[in-house]
Amino acid sequence: MASLAPHCQTLMEAKQASGKTFAEIAAAIGKPEVWTAALFFGNAVTDAETAAKIATEIGLKDEVAVKGLAGKGPGSLGVDGMIVRGQNWEWPPKDPVLYRLYEVLVVYGYSYKALIYEKFGDGIMSAIGFRTSVERKADPKGDRVVITLDGKFLPYSSPEEW
Amino acid sequence: MASLAPHCQTLMEAKQASGKTFAEIAAAIGKPEVWTAALFFGNAVTDAETAAKIATEIGLKDEVAVKGLAGKGPGSLGVDGMIVRGQNWEWPPKDPVLYRLYEVLVVYGYSYKALIYEKFGDGIMSAIGFRTSVERKADPKGDRVVITLDGKFLPYSSPEEW
Amino acid sequence: MASLAPHCQTLMEAKQASGKTFAEIAAAIGKPEVWTAALFFGNAVTDAETAAKIATEIGLKDEVAVKGLAGKGPGSLGVDGMIVRGQNWEWPPKDPVLYRLYEVLVVYGYSYKALIYEKFGDGIMSAIGFRTSVERKADPKGDRVVITLDGKFLPYSSPEEW
Amino acid sequence: MASLAPHCQTLMEAKQASGKTFAEIAAAIGKPEVWTAALFFGNAVTDAETAAKIATEIGLKDEVAVKGLAGKGPGSLGVDGMIVRGQNWEWPPKDPVLYRLYEVLVVYGYSYKALIYEKFGDGIMSAIGFRTSVERKADPKGDRVVITLDGKFLPYSSPEEW
Amino acid sequence: MASLAPHCQTLMEAKQASGKTFAEIAAAIGKPEVWTAALFFGNAVTDAETAAKIATEIGLKDEVAVKGLAGKGPGSLGVDGMIVRGQNWEWPPKDPVLYRLYEVLVVYGYSYKALIYEKFGDGIMSAIGFRTSVERKADPKGDRVVITLDGKFLPYSSPEEW
Amino acid sequence: MASLAPHCQTLMEAKQASGKTFAEIAAAIGKPEVWTAALFFGNAVTDAETAAKIATEIGLKDEVAVKGLAGKGPGSLGVDGMIVRGQNWEWPPKDPVLYRLYEVLVVYGYSYKALIYEKFGDGIMSAIGFRTSVERKADPKGDRVVITLDGKFLPYSSPEEW
Amino acid sequence: MASLAPHCQTLMEAKQASGKTFAEIAAAIGKPEVWTAALFFGNAVTDAETAAKIATEIGLKDEVAVKGLAGKGPGSLGVDGMIVRGQNWEWPPKDPVLYRLYEVLVVYGYSYKALIYEKFGDGIMSAIGFRTSVERKADPKGDRVVITLDGKFLPYSSPEEW
Amino acid sequence: MASLAPHCQTLMEAKQASGKTFAEIAAAIGKPEVWTAALFFGNAVTDAETAAKIATEIGLKDEVAVKGLAGKGPGSLGVDGMIVRGQNWEWPPKDPVLYRLYEVLVVYGYSYKALIYEKFGDGIMSAIGFRTSVERKADPKGDRVVITLDGKFLPYSSPEEW
Amino acid sequence: MASLAPHCQTLMEAKQASGKTFAEIAAAIGKPEVWTAALFFGNAVTDAETAAKIATEIGLKDEVAVKGLAGKGPGSLGVDGMIVRGQNWEWPPKDPVLYRLYEVLVVYGYSYKALIYEKFGDGIMSAIGFRTSVERKADPKGDRVVITLDGKFLPYSSPEEW
Amino acid sequence: MASLAPHCQTLMEAKQASGKTFAEIAAAIGKPEVWTAALFFGNAVTDAETAAKIATEIGLKDEVAVKGLAGKGPGSLGVDGMIVRGQNWEWPPKDPVLYRLYEVLVVYGYSYKALIYEKFGDGIMSAIGFRTSVERKADPKGDRVVITLDGKFLPYSSPEEW
Repeated sequence: MASLAPHCQTLMEAKQASGKTFAEIAAAIGKPEVWTAALFFGNAVTDAETAAKIATEIGLKDEVAVKGLAGKGPGSLGVDGMIVRGQNWEWPPKDPVLYRLYEVLVVYGYSYKALIYEKFGDGIMSAIGFRTSVERKADPKGDRVVITLDGKFLPYSSPEEW
Repeated sequence: MASLAPHCQTLMEAKQASGKTFAEIAAAIGKPEVWTAALFFGNAVTDAETAAKIATEIGLKDEVAVKGLAGKGPGSLGVDGMIVRGQNWEWPPKDPVLYRLYEVLVVYGYSYKALIYEKFGDGIMSAIGFRTSVERKADPKGDRVVITLDGKFLPYSSPEEW
Repeated sequence: MASLAPHCQTLMEAKQASGKTFAEIAAAIGKPEVWTAALFFGNAVTDAETAAKIATEIGLKDEVAVKGLAGKGPGSLGVDGMIVRGQNWEWPPKDPVLYRLYEVLVVYGYSYKALIYEKFGDGIMSAIGFRTSVERKADPKGDRVVITLDGKFLPYSSPEEW
Repeated sequence: MASLAPHCQTLMEAKQASGKTFAEIAAAIGKPEVWTAALFFGNAVTDAETAAKIATEIGLKDEVAVKGLAGKGPGSLGVDGMIVRGQNWEWPPKDPVLYRLYEVLVVYGYSYKALIYEKFGDGIMSAIGFRTSVERKADPKGDRVVITLDGKFLPYSSPEEW
Repeated sequence: MASLAPHCQTLMEAKQASGKTFAEIAAAIGKPEVWTAALFFGNAVTDAETAAKIATEIGLKDEVAVKGLAGKGPGSLGVDGMIVRGQNWEWPPKDPVLYRLYEVLVVYGYSYKALIYEKFGDGIMSAIGFRTSVERKADPKGDRVVITLDGKFLPYSSPEEW
Repeated sequence: MASLAPHCQTLMEAKQASGKTFAEIAAAIGKPEVWTAALFFGNAVTDAETAAKIATEIGLKDEVAVKGLAGKGPGSLGVDGMIVRGQNWEWPPKDPVLYRLYEVLVVYGYSYKALIYEKFGDGIMSAIGFRTSVERKADPKGDRVVITLDGKFLPYSSPEEW
Repeated sequence: MASLAPHCQTLMEAKQASGKTFAEIAAAIGKPEVWTAALFFGNAVTDAETAAKIATEIGLKDEVAVKGLAGKGPGSLGVDGMIVRGQNWEWPPKDPVLYRLYEVLVVYGYSYKALIYEKFGDGIMSAIGFRTSVERKADPKGDRVVITLDGKFLPYSSPEEW
Repeated sequence: MASLAPHCQTLMEAKQASGKTFAEIAAAIGKPEVWTAALFFGNAVTDAETAAKIATEIGLKDEVAVKGLAGKGPGSLGVDGMIVRGQNWEWPPKDPVLYRLYEVLVVYGYSYKALIYEKFGDGIMSAIGFRTSVERKADPKGDRVVITLDGKFLPYSSPEEW
Repeated sequence: MASLAPHCQTLMEAKQASGKTFAEIAAAIGKPEVWTAALFFGNAVTDAETAAKIATEIGLKDEVAVKGLAGKGPGSLGVDGMIVRGQNWEWPPKDPVLYRLYEVLVVYGYSYKALIYEKFGDGIMSAIGFRTSVERKADPKGDRVVITLDGKFLPYSSPEEW
Repeated sequence: MASLAPHCQTLMEAKQASGKTFAEIAAAIGKPEVWTAALFFGNAVTDAETAAKIATEIGLKDEVAVKGLAGKGPGSLGVDGMIVRGQNWEWPPKDPVLYRLYEVLVVYGYSYKALIYEKFGDGIMSAIGFRTSVERKADPKGDRVVITLDGKFLPYSSPEEW
């Protein structure tokens, strides 16, 4: 189950009470949308200043939750600013929206790997030096979801660099 | 292990012997790159005409493999044109390139779900009415891999349509 | 275990106290039976108006539960109207009623796939553009359960549409 | 992977060479379509007479395969007419067509269970005293796949019958 | 862990306080022993009258638990009389008594299948139209546990009956 | 999959060619039916004399298979008479006949445990000092499969015996 | 995680407060050490008299915990003296002490099986008619842990005894 | 399944043909019995001299198998004398002899851990600096299997030694 | 999820409130950094004196948490100084930092094994007689994380030592 | 099982026949030892020139194997120079040498994560921009294995860089 950490649950409730969308909150703080949503799910972390702006934006009073945005409190395991990513993911996903994202890998994963090799050589698309977005693209046959994964190519260290 | 069906293995060997990349083959047959790669991995299927063009392009003689491209032979389970997708995927992926794609979902999956909801409502990004690409984007700090997932939004049937 | 979200548990208790069946509730609100049951299990979502009608029908006072029907509150992960489907399913099912449904796939799944291919071509039966029912059919040798799955056929995007 | 028993693979190849669909073969032998397909996948068994008709229909010469249809040979584990069902199913399914069937259970499984209870009482829909079909239903918004599961209701033995 | 539903835990405590065995309770209500034990474990369900008799027999006051015996309350998922069987089973069992029962299947399961085929044909021993008992058989070399599984044979529907 | 060891496959083929049932073979060698079937599945072992009788009974010539019955050859791991039991069992079983046997444990396993405790005390039903049978019991409402598990009760060593 | 049942946790706290080791408690009650430790972990059960002695020995007042030693209360599932063994074991073990015990089986398990066969024939070392100990053996190169498993050999029932 | 590496299978066949037991072979080469058996199962390795003695003892001609005993050939992964232990173990074990060994850990594992702590402190019983044996102990109530695990205690490095 | 034992959670909160890093705490108590961090995660244990120093260092008042550092209280399972290591590890890790450590084994594990063999012979790198550190190494192309694993080589007991 | 790809098996055999260690081969080609070993296990890839040098060094004639070193042939999935890493790793590892490496993560993984955070901030140790070694360190108390992991720190992209 998508069990959120308690401070994330508090964040979500404040957001819902405020009536703001992630897009609106992201715009208000001048940050990307997916990153902003990831903050609320406990999969990204920010500084105290941004945390405060978000709190103002959504009318959040709970101090533990505000600190949680900046990686303080229970989720931080005692290390200021540290988060443990991926804790609300289950393997494999059962929700249909999540499953479709996974199915894309099942069907096209090896093709992605092969094309990355052919275009870049031996290495990976970084999921750290990474940015991503979700857009709505109008289409007369039915609007489309466009998700962009944009990660730095990282070549495997050549043995000369070892 | 990424075990390919025998006819896919034959396709891959012919491709490698020809020295062609997936991008070049895709250009030669006028089809998208990821789709073309998926054909070789047994995760897409085409008609006899395209299969023939590919055979010409990569100098493939093996008739079983050519038929396989069009969904005939052992992989088709006796049904003309039918393929079983996803057979070379293992769960979870161990190869680092594949794992990073998976990690993107672990970290950002719920954010994608939330933004799709906020922008479209109750439904999914189709992985069937779907197109996708891998691009190399030049960047002075290091070139980037850009993968685009572009799927039709499908709303859940409203109860009035049941 | 079939652990329901708290607001679903509240819904179920109100329903049971009211003595209404899912069929009666569905009739009262003019919606399909399986969809109505899915609402109570947290696998479908509705608008505030229908939620209110249901509350009246089963004498439900609990505001959190009424909001839950419309995808607000803890289960919504902060996004109005959003639900996470499939959370009470375990893999594989142990309850005999659920297992028999699963066994149908174990035994006939590939046959369904093959017949869909032969009758429609390369694509899927949508589980999103979908409607389904459970009926009791009288039979002198013993009445029968008839479950109908009725989903829109979705063809894989042809490479020309990519 | 959908690995077929060797005699099933032979059956599939003969079928494909004959150009016949499962629907055509079923019509020729006067049996249901899903059942006929299940025979080819090794999930149903028939008598020698029907096996012979099928052989004629698809031009099958291989005696081992013909016997296999009647539950003789390697798959029968030494018992005339015995088959082991479900051997080509993997858990969970990765092919998108198979996955959608599974997703229907993930999302609506508990609703089916609840409606069966309300309409019949404590018992199951039999997957043994069972018949099922796949139909194409024309629809101006896109044709639909209609799968019908029709199983005898079996009540749990009351303690008086123990 | 063998986690019982709360109302089952209450039943067990009342039973233990009463000093009655399952055999004594079964005799008092005129029902089979295994069925009676299954009631207490939440794997069988009864009517209100029998529930009341059991309550008297074991001095049970807790109304929720009495209702639970008749399939009302939290475990019923809102459907009068409905239970979800198998919830306290873990796969594979670790307790040695449970494991030995499982080991019998590991070692003799295919033999049972083969003998059922040879004696009855293509079908199953029903676990629904079923009764079972545990007896103590005196034996000078050490008394023996005799468990009897007695289920109706159900033949697979012949294709003519589809 | 129910993959048999090669010598078991040979045994099964000879048995099928002979037209004998397990019951007939068991009668011919004067041994129990389930035990005889277990021999063929590689889950029991016998002496050379009985192996020879079986070979005669089913017209088996293959010496490796005859030796296999007596626990010699590849399956014995180099130890005369040693077998590795349970190798053709998969966890959980997918075949419906095998699954129903398993479901009996899912539903009644804890009840069996409780009744064994109440009738015998702290210990197990041995699966080693064990005998078992499958019988067909005539019944006007449909004949029944009766499987009897008859195992010696083994009490846990009391601490005084340690 | 090694989650203990609540009454076991109480026992452990009383033991720790008393400053007694398992060896001292075992000596005080005249029972084996491993058995005594197993009692505290909920993997063995004793009579009321021994439970009382232990309570005195470790200054335990909590009545639920004392009863738990004699198999009464929540863990007993309503059956006087019954326990469910193995509930704090996880598969595979992650703690290094537990893992090494498991690794012994990974590396030497088949050797044990083969030597048991060669020395005894077809059967098992009972884990029920069993006693075991942990000793410290002085050794100039470093003291050694000596664990002894001492179980009755149980031969498989010969078919004559079925 | 207990699949042996090919050279181990060859060793086993030669041993069986020679009629020697592991105990006899161990005596002939002057090594411990369990270690000798482990050699044959590919879970121990020896020098060329001992390998040659074993070959003589069991009349083994196959050079690949003799080399395998000394860690040369396919199993060595190219490193002289290197073996990969544990390859024929499956998790969890299904064979009853192997399962009982495992069950000992399920039931007594935490007790072993606790007693090792109390007698030695923070550390493990080494499975590397280790020796073990299987003995038959005569007992009028039935002979007993006695397995001894004898491993060096290894204390965790104190932080001063880091 | 990285669920910490309650006393570890308390330790982490005190540490965070104190503003001290693990490196500072380690320096203050004169112990290695990784060991000090492991103490806080419940994967190492210390004596009462060091526990007291740490409490002073981070201003920790909670007595249960201080005792927990010295292996007393709930986590100790009743044995003074005993801890159960590895309880907050999940398999496989989902957090990207943890996953990368794991990926190093996936990619280089067999190479480590082979080089240990070639440099030392048949044995292991002890994870008990072990020390480890994390260092920041300045590098103009980007600073580097250097983790050192330093464990005593332990040779497998030669059969002469058994 | 550590199943090597066929061309890796060939490489290993040539290496063993040549009597060279990985250290010697690495020195001869002027590359790091772990990288060189990884090449042989199919977890690293090199250019044709280095492949040729290795072939000379170990007397390798097999052209498929030489090409395999440079990422050509079956393992390359049709893409020149592409390899699929991690294919011989099993999860969890059973071999004791591999398991100890894994255990280091189980016990110290979270400590590594915490120290990386405190010393670098929010990011990972790259397993791509990575080098590693295995050294033998003399120690009078027993020589030690020292494994160094040296990876570039990669900070998570700040939202400003998205």
